Amino acid sequence: MTITDPRDPRVADFHDLHAGDRRPGTERGTGPVVVEGVTAVERLLASGLPVRCVYGVPGRVDQLAVPAGVPVHVADKWVLSETIGFRLTRGVLASCERPVPPALPDLLAGARRIAVLEGLNDHENIGSIARSAWALGVDALLLDPTCADPYYRRAVRVSMGHLLTTPLRVLPDWPGDLERVRSAGFTTVALTPGADVDLAAVDPVAHPRTAVLLGAEGPGLSAAAMDAVDVRARIPMRPGVDSLGVAAAAAVVFATLR
Amino acid sequence: MTITDPRDPRVADFHDLHAGDRRPGTERGTGPVVVEGVTAVERLLASGLPVRCVYGVPGRVDQLAVPAGVPVHVADKWVLSETIGFRLTRGVLASCERPVPPALPDLLAGARRIAVLEGLNDHENIGSIARSAWALGVDALLLDPTCADPYYRRAVRVSMGHLLTTPLRVLPDWPGDLERVRSAGFTTVALTPGADVDLAAVDPVAHPRTAVLLGAEGPGLSAAAMDAVDVRARIPMRPGVDSLGVAAAAAVVFATLR
Repeated sequence: MTITDPRDPRVADFHDLHAGDRRPGTERGTGPVVVEGVTAVERLLASGLPVRCVYGVPGRVDQLAVPAGVPVHVADKWVLSETIGFRLTRGVLASCERPVPPALPDLLAGARRIAVLEGLNDHENIGSIARSAWALGVDALLLDPTCADPYYRRAVRVSMGHLLTTPLRVLPDWPGDLERVRSAGFTTVALTPGADVDLAAVDPVAHPRTAVLLGAEGPGLSAAAMDAVDVRARIPMRPGVDSLGVAAAAAVVFATLR
Repeated sequence: MTITDPRDPRVADFHDLHAGDRRPGTERGTGPVVVEGVTAVERLLASGLPVRCVYGVPGRVDQLAVPAGVPVHVADKWVLSETIGFRLTRGVLASCERPVPPALPDLLAGARRIAVLEGLNDHENIGSIARSAWALGVDALLLDPTCADPYYRRAVRVSMGHLLTTPLRVLPDWPGDLERVRSAGFTTVALTPGADVDLAAVDPVAHPRTAVLLGAEGPGLSAAAMDAVDVRARIPMRPGVDSLGVAAAAAVVFATLR
């Protein structure tokens, strides 16, 4: 359907995205997920997740193989921009229901490498870590309860949509639930600049399943999380420097543990 | 001096930063550099670069060891925000003259690992790459003429100020000037997902000096640049995936070549 009124209720999932990434009346971590750009929308459409709506300019929507039954709305770029509240350079959006997290035993059973994030409050860092994780052979993500919402629009965008399809869940009992990860046969590794062990010394043959913990820039991992792991390791850096962004550090870790 | 008028000419370097990161009347790549936040400003003050001005709230300015002769202005956070045109959460800024690029022979003489950037038009990616480069033992940066300005405010911020002190210059004849890098004894390595060679196979003993080329996300390196290098190499990734952000890829490359 062609949308001519930016406030059309059929595209309500996309109203005022800056102001309302969380829909009015929804709690943090609830409400539909908004996906931007052809690549990420294609990934969504291929994922089997319940798509609510596709909305974009005709030239971009025509590039997509939209399954039957999914509402598709087109508009010119001015109406589209009015709906979302800013100029969208990518020209197409979609919304979907939030992925249902796998049960922890199922997530662990299917994984050899896991990234565990603690206190990451920057959506773009979460998105970047998810993108690198998938590319570099990490099979699942676990988040402590204080991380930002991984299904927030900006996180999904930076992940190039990989956040939608990566097995992911929040560990409600933190750091207690790390014991469940260890019990499943994972060596838990905390990344921290102060460690004595070089990350490259964590032998993948001796440790075929690893779960690596990453904390936020600045505070780093909590003392409780560091106490709960098997190994504390660091990335070798120029002497006197501890200045590696968490997304860059994550990429180095994933490539090293491969 | 305490500033009470946001338009005070003594803090003109910081007027309307969003709108005027390039000062009106200046060309791209000219004009003073604006530095934000205590960490980056401290790095600037310790660098020996010609500082023009420090401007911030008293609590942040008091944390800094400002050399004699540098003008220091303080203001409350409302006046400061009015000057720059947005709410500055970091509370302190400084401006400096643009670093004078070292001559290419000098830059090459002092380096064992170099990153060469082609077509990188995202300031935050340039900043992130510079931060990782310094931490992971890369000694200098070279840019092709189409890269974004590395001394733009956002790039400097994301680099945590390391862009100010990393030896850096633009190669005016591109890719012809790569021959000058090779003549100085560097093995030139192009990072590209389509290569047959695993980056880890580039032996640091056989190639003690390396210059690695990184291109923008999407287009990647130009054909001319790929033709001009000694080795084309890739980061091993999950089959079917080529989705690693350039800043994450750079971090992996720097850590691997170390």
